[in-house]
Amino acid sequence: MSGFSDSVTSLHDLRTVVREFVDERDWRQFHSPKNLSMSVAIEAAELMEHFQWLRPEESHQISAEKIAEVADEMADVFCYLMAMANELDIDLSQAFERKMAKNRMKYPAVEFRGRFGIDDPKPVSE
Amino acid sequence: MSGFSDSVTSLHDLRTVVREFVDERDWRQFHSPKNLSMSVAIEAAELMEHFQWLRPEESHQISAEKIAEVADEMADVFCYLMAMANELDIDLSQAFERKMAKNRMKYPAVEFRGRFGIDDPKPVSE
Amino acid sequence: MSGFSDSVTSLHDLRTVVREFVDERDWRQFHSPKNLSMSVAIEAAELMEHFQWLRPEESHQISAEKIAEVADEMADVFCYLMAMANELDIDLSQAFERKMAKNRMKYPAVEFRGRFGIDDPKPVSE
Amino acid sequence: MSGFSDSVTSLHDLRTVVREFVDERDWRQFHSPKNLSMSVAIEAAELMEHFQWLRPEESHQISAEKIAEVADEMADVFCYLMAMANELDIDLSQAFERKMAKNRMKYPAVEFRGRFGIDDPKPVSE
Repeated sequence: MSGFSDSVTSLHDLRTVVREFVDERDWRQFHSPKNLSMSVAIEAAELMEHFQWLRPEESHQISAEKIAEVADEMADVFCYLMAMANELDIDLSQAFERKMAKNRMKYPAVEFRGRFGIDDPKPVSE
Repeated sequence: MSGFSDSVTSLHDLRTVVREFVDERDWRQFHSPKNLSMSVAIEAAELMEHFQWLRPEESHQISAEKIAEVADEMADVFCYLMAMANELDIDLSQAFERKMAKNRMKYPAVEFRGRFGIDDPKPVSE
Repeated sequence: MSGFSDSVTSLHDLRTVVREFVDERDWRQFHSPKNLSMSVAIEAAELMEHFQWLRPEESHQISAEKIAEVADEMADVFCYLMAMANELDIDLSQAFERKMAKNRMKYPAVEFRGRFGIDDPKPVSE
Repeated sequence: MSGFSDSVTSLHDLRTVVREFVDERDWRQFHSPKNLSMSVAIEAAELMEHFQWLRPEESHQISAEKIAEVADEMADVFCYLMAMANELDIDLSQAFERKMAKNRMKYPAVEFRGRFGIDDPKPVSE
């Protein structure tokens, strides 16, 4: 264990772990961005499966055991996202910052307060 | 711009941006883990759409314009992943480290060299 | 309009329409089962997007306009599913019948009454 | 076995099987369109998983055993699609016919011959 934690670890450090894992197994040959985009989507569906039959409010109150399973699936999505960032040489933090700037313009806080989802808006009650 | 970059920015910093964006709009009411898992999967599909009809080798050679679009979609997936980490109070770096340790046990480098995908193994040529 | 309707139209008739549409455009060259599986997943995500921020009970009460949009997305998923059945020469009705027989064995009605989802079981209240 | 086959079975007959299966288990309580849209997407991802690391051309030449597994996953997608059609009272054959008419207008055969995918167009080589 190298003691990773969200409060101190950089994305660069995490991406390096992915890169080494892939290189040690000579798996870059399978890691076309096309294939990796499928991997991200497949892992996202496995993540979603944990919540499939829960009511939204139930999904806030899952057990510690279930949380651990969900965390594993989130790690899988994240891992493939970083593998793709490695292949396409994309700085994910910069991409995130740029996209959030767009989101702030698209959804001004005053106008959208309590009224929409992050990316796919939905009026609350009308 | 706060000058984010993978080499220095921590996941904590990125997660704080998501949290503030969500709180300023009072959108936590929509952010059940169930709904967020759907969001991750929907954005993952939009990411995949960029590669749908490309041959795997073509997907390595996309234009700078296309790279920017792909980076936007990756940011969306990442953003919802962090929103979910915020809701469930999951340290994504730790979850990643734990999952990678499992992956190293499941796929020893010597045995799987050149032979499998990261999570869903596939013999190369037999 | 050829007057299709669920009460009389066979899957063979629908599959023929897909086949002709694809052949008239010379699109079979893009229709590898791999690509078509991506298409099914992408359209499934677009279908899901219509329900992303709705509460489950709200999703029963969508407007006629929304129903028409949802029906369009369902048609897209269905269309790619048939394109894949065409490529792999799979009889979808037979596959369905075989899978339902497995489901009946896996989920005996007496035992699972009111207790599980179709494929991914979930105890209701314990 | 009731001897279903694409050449003779109507969608109505298949939908009736789904309806009875669901009613016998009292599972309609879980079958909000929202939940069913998640189910369609989850099964679509499981279908895609079979092709994740294959090259497109390899995906045409899968073994009989693999075909059977793929057929099972296609049946799952199809099953949830019909469960959703049942819940929302949508005639899938009519929806398909209407959507194909739109597709024919959007992609005239003369203009798009050999040049695009079904729904998300992509110039072949320019």
